[in-house]
This record gives sequence, C-alpha cells and structure tokens, in this order.
Amino acid sequence: MALIVQKFGGSSVKDAEQINNVAEIVTSAYRAGNRVVAVVSAQGDTTDELEAQGLAINPSPSKREMDMLLSAGEQISAALLAMAIEELGCPVVSLLGWQAGFETTSTHGEARIRRVRVERILKELDQRRIVVVTGFQGVDRYGDMTTLGRGGSDTSAVAIAAALKADLCQFYKDVDGVYTADPRKVPGARKLDFISYDEMLELATLGAQVLHNRAVEMAKKYNIRLEMLSSLTRTRGTIVKGERKMEEMLLSGVTKDDNTARISVIGVPDRPGMAFKIFSTLAAKGINVDVILQSIGRNGTKDISFTVPSPKMEEAVALIEEQRENWGVTDIISDEDVAKVSIVGAGMETHPGVAAEMFEALFSQNINIRMISTSEIKITVLLDKADGDRAVKAIHDKFFGDV
Amino acid sequence: MALIVQKFGGSSVKDAEQINNVAEIVTSAYRAGNRVVAVVSAQGDTTDELEAQGLAINPSPSKREMDMLLSAGEQISAALLAMAIEELGCPVVSLLGWQAGFETTSTHGEARIRRVRVERILKELDQRRIVVVTGFQGVDRYGDMTTLGRGGSDTSAVAIAAALKADLCQFYKDVDGVYTADPRKVPGARKLDFISYDEMLELATLGAQVLHNRAVEMAKKYNIRLEMLSSLTRTRGTIVKGERKMEEMLLSGVTKDDNTARISVIGVPDRPGMAFKIFSTLAAKGINVDVILQSIGRNGTKDISFTVPSPKMEEAVALIEEQRENWGVTDIISDEDVAKVSIVGAGMETHPGVAAEMFEALFSQNINIRMISTSEIKITVLLDKADGDRAVKAIHDKFFGDV
Repeated sequence: MALIVQKFGGSSVKDAEQINNVAEIVTSAYRAGNRVVAVVSAQGDTTDELEAQGLAINPSPSKREMDMLLSAGEQISAALLAMAIEELGCPVVSLLGWQAGFETTSTHGEARIRRVRVERILKELDQRRIVVVTGFQGVDRYGDMTTLGRGGSDTSAVAIAAALKADLCQFYKDVDGVYTADPRKVPGARKLDFISYDEMLELATLGAQVLHNRAVEMAKKYNIRLEMLSSLTRTRGTIVKGERKMEEMLLSGVTKDDNTARISVIGVPDRPGMAFKIFSTLAAKGINVDVILQSIGRNGTKDISFTVPSPKMEEAVALIEEQRENWGVTDIISDEDVAKVSIVGAGMETHPGVAAEMFEALFSQNINIRMISTSEIKITVLLDKADGDRAVKAIHDKFFGDV
Repeated sequence: MALIVQKFGGSSVKDAEQINNVAEIVTSAYRAGNRVVAVVSAQGDTTDELEAQGLAINPSPSKREMDMLLSAGEQISAALLAMAIEELGCPVVSLLGWQAGFETTSTHGEARIRRVRVERILKELDQRRIVVVTGFQGVDRYGDMTTLGRGGSDTSAVAIAAALKADLCQFYKDVDGVYTADPRKVPGARKLDFISYDEMLELATLGAQVLHNRAVEMAKKYNIRLEMLSSLTRTRGTIVKGERKMEEMLLSGVTKDDNTARISVIGVPDRPGMAFKIFSTLAAKGINVDVILQSIGRNGTKDISFTVPSPKMEEAVALIEEQRENWGVTDIISDEDVAKVSIVGAGMETHPGVAAEMFEALFSQNINIRMISTSEIKITVLLDKADGDRAVKAIHDKFFGDV
C-alpha cells in the first residue's frame, strides 16, 4: 500500500466535467489500495478573476487582504472535488491550508512554508479517507491566511509529500510528461521516461511549462519521487528522481524562452566593483538577472551584457540610467526582440562536443548567436526572437531527430 | 466612544458600488470615534450559486463539504469590503469565522454558536482597526468549517455584539426600518421608531422579512440594542429593545405569510394521545407546525387542523396517510391556497377589542376567515390566498390608516 500525493492544476478542475474526471483518477488510486492525498489549485481562471474583482475596488490593496480573497478559490475547488469523490462512493474529507497544517511565513502573497503539521491528514488517512487539500495557501503564526505565490500549489503538493514521506507525488497537467522540446512546436519531440531534479530545475528556469522551481528544489531536498502526467490521457508520465542511469539519454531537452530582454551597459570603467554596483542595484528592486557576459576590458572600459525578464526591462534600464553619470557609463542598449534557447542534459559536462554540435545546428540554419552562456548541464544561446522556433527545431533535429 | 456592530446583507455587498457604499458607512462610524465591527453576508446570490455548482456535481453531498463550499462566499465579500475600507484610508482587518473565534456545534448546515472567543477581535479593535467578520460561518471542535443555516449572518452579528458587550448592533437591509405593514403593498404603512424583542419575534415568525428569529432571541437574551436601517437612505431606522414605553403605539404591524398550507385531519377518534401522535410524527421529520385548531368532539370523533410551510405540505400529508388506518382517521384534506394574516402588538392583551375590530375590518371587505388563532401579542387569521392583500390593507387602514 503506497501513499500517493496527486496534484491537479486549475485547468484539471475548471468545470464539473473535469472535476468528475479528477475524481475518477483519485478514486482509482484509492481503490487500488493506496492512501491518497489530492492537492488542488483554484478552478480555471478563478484566481485571476478574484484578483481583478479586488483591484476594481482598490487598485493597491494590502497583500494580507488579497491573500484572504484569493484563498477562497482553492476552498471552492477542494469542496467540489470532495463532493465528486463522495458521489463515486469513496470516503473523503477536504481540508483548507490551515486545517492541513500548512504553517508559513507572514510574507503575504509569496509566503514560504515553515512546516506542515500532518497530524490531521494522517488521522484522516488512518480512517481510510481520501484527503483533498487546498494548494497555494497556508496560515502564519498570527493565524492569518497566506498564499505561496507563483507555483505555490506545486510546492504545497511536494511539501505534503515530504512531510508524509509519500512514495510518489504526481502532477497532473495539460501535457502527459516532460518532452525533449515543446511538442506543440517541434513535431519530433519525444516524452522522457525519466529526468533528474537538476535537469527539471534547468527546464523550469528556462521557461518550459513543467513544474515550478520551488517545488523541484523541495523534491530534490527531500528526495521525493515525482511523476509528471496528464489528467486526460491516463498514460505513464515522466518520473523525476535523483539520478539518471548511465545508459539513459544524455540530453533531456531543448527549451525556448521568449519572455526575456537583453541589456548591454557600454563603456563601464574597468575597475573593481562595477559589476557588483550594477547587479546589486537591480537585485535591491527584485529584478532577476540571467546570462551575464562581460567583455574583456579595452581602453580602460568594458561592456557588461545580461538578460532580464521582459516586463522588467524598462525598470532595469531606468535604474542604471539614474546612476549613469555617477558610474561613468557611456551608453545603455536594450533589446526585447530576443529569445533564449537552451539545451539541457545531465551528462553534458563529460561531452564537450555538445556545444559545438549545437552551434553547428544553428550555423546550418544561418542563425546568428548574440550571446552564449554555459553551465555544467546546459548551454544557452541568445538569438533574434524571429529565429527562436527555427533554432529549437534545428537543435532538436540534431540531437533527437534520428533517435 | 461606542462599540458598534454593523451587519450588511448580501444585497448590500452585491457589487463594487454597493461595497464602496458599505465602506462609506463603516468608515463614517469609525471616524466618528466609534469602535466598529462589520459583519458581512456573501455577495448577492453567491451562496445559491455555489450551492448549485455543488449540486450539479453531487445531488446529495455531505453537509460538511457543502459548508466548506458555501463558507467561501463570505470570505470573498469580507476581503473585498476590507479592501474598499483600505481604499478610504482606514486601518482594517478581515477575519473568517474561525479567526473571529466562532465556535459552533458540529451540525453542519445548521450549526449553533457555542461561544465567540473575542480575543482576536478585541486585539484588533485595541489597535484602532475596523474589523470585518464573515457572517454565517464558524468552526466546530474538530476544526471543521460550519455554517449557521437560515438567518445565520444575522445571528453572527448579534453573537459578536453580545460577546463584545456592544452598545448597538445595526442591521442594514433593503428597507429602512420596521413598518406597520409591507410598505410596497400598503401605501399607508408607517415606519416604527421602536419595537420590542417580542414583537420582532412575532413579525419574523409571521413571515415579515425583518430579522431572523434566532438573532432576535439572542438579542433578547443578552439585551442587545438593535437597529434596523437601510444602507441606501442613511436615515434613522427602527430601534429594537427590551420594552416599549406606555405611550407608544399599541399595535406594531400587520403581516402576511403566503408560504403556508393548511392540513385538516378529519374524523380523528376522540381519545387521549391522538394529537400527540400526529404532531410527534411530523416533528420527528422536522416539519414545523403552526396555528393548531381542534374541533369539539362529536360522535366520538374530532377534526384537527393546522398549518405547515407550503414546501412541507406533501410530506406531512404522506406521513399522516401512512398511519391513517392505524390511527383510524377518516380523511385528510390539504389546501395550499391560503394566506396567514396577523396583527401584532405588545399591548394587545389588555385591549380585548382588537380582535373584534380586526374581524370587523375583514367582514367589511366580505373576506371569509378560515381559521383563527390568538396569543398575548398577536391575532392570526387564515384566509383564501386571493384575499390576502385586501385583508392586510383593510386591517391596516382600520388600525393605522388615520394616524
């Protein structure tokens, strides 16, 4: 008898039909003899709709009250799923974040889980009940409702799995696993049977819509076996676990991120501390910086280029502009018209030829590379946005096309 | 500095405009130097809509899960009202039933309040915050969400007022007070400045849409001063308190209840225990019986007539039909086509002429009386439904027309 945590996203519970489908999945696992905890997001666009309703009344409400408002969303979906499970004849109980023991920090809107007191969940499981838990939400030490921010429900599921020492934590999404590239855009994309935590982290960071980094990081920390699968196809998904075996595929996939912008700071004085000044200024405003490149100094100056999420570009440029004279910078150039394409794979470090093959694939399509950045398990290139899809296809064909 | 509890019903918070209006009322009271607790219902038809959504998935869900589903409604309206109050620049915090200390029985769907632990509310009031509390909901000893059933939010407000020893508990409704008759139907209806708890109880029992009996009973028990007023007109409403002064008007109003049906059990054997058998059978199924009349026995049999709420008529008839042979009853007659019209007033007991004047008013309109029942502070007659409105007008004209 295994203990399984099953996470269902908003689109999986968006209407009565979908909720009934999810109830079938949950009760099947239960009837097979497993102990089952189902973690649900709010239905469809409920969270966005509630937020819009609040902002219509107050354009800048306190985050505490926004958490109070938004957490009603999962309450509704959890109760509806429990009713659907009752209708299928299985004993069930739904629990809100605070009832399920989710203790978080008080950072409303992006709270961190401090711990999950699972006494109540265990008591219900011991009575052979299916437990439905609201994702995304918890309670702080003052007894106030909190929400976990982006990817929160995924993190909730892994946190419960860790606290319960679950055998498996399943994520039911729109797609039935992790692919070597976006299957909607690259016809030859293949589903992976296995992938490592580190590879999942890279995929998530690179913009593949798989699983939020917070959830993967927690799974890695507590060594929780994850499965990515679809609530519609009922086929085996992709297992995420600690290490892949040697004989498994070297590379796990090709990803593209359009939501990125490049900023180049030109003519930075070539003296210590300039990079620190630039990036600490951005970090103080919560702007995440990715792919940093610095040119070799010439004539006493150097150029520093980096990428930021597109919506943050203007703010980042303005922050640097403010300090321009102070720092003695010549020019600031920004470009939203770029795409970040990466190839990810755990074995890459021992195969130096991967980068060369990737650049060859791009060259064969006459695609110009604007920036290059490498890590132990990925290679990222920055390209013109117009070249993005072609680049993904070319790289995918090169590495996965003939498998 | 007074402590005021303000209760706002679903129609008072049904959209952003109404919520902003409520926020104005609450902040006005706060800025006048009062400590203010606002109790809110769910927006407009939210409760009905949530219930329908649940029943579409499971026609007979557990009451526990229905409570979980429905209690999301007040959570949304409370958060939105708090945001509207923030927008007006006042410090505010919204609290759910469990956060506000509402401890109830475990009778899901119609839980009773065991007590209100007001520590958290007091702490917030002491920090000069407005406190918005969700009505209708609480938590049982197992930490499960409960709802209070019909009239629950009104009861929540009085319970908080009692626990806080509030100076006043205001109910903002569609109408701006308690009237001598339904002002939409009787042109001469007048608003009362004062009314006693007992009179309010009679009015509520008789179907006047004023305040739920549970709330009035609790107010009477704890001697909480109530005010019935409108969220739209901002004029003085009707005060409900312990005793009315002698010089105040004798009669408080005329009411009509269309939602009633008459059942007559014909040829009941004239021996002890028959009435007990009939009414205990109905009570066991939760059917409330009103206006009971028993004919004088003749030929060893008697007839017992009574009224039940219309939706319960068929069930009540079926229950008696089951025992018909067993009890030796001749016939069962039921009639939905009736209206219950009453005149209510604290001073009635000392003025025997009231009944006679009421009957005269009906006679003058050629209206046939089907049943009569009297108590110390009310006289009720059962009429053909078609005569209902005419009867109310005739009685109202007689007693209040020339004031």
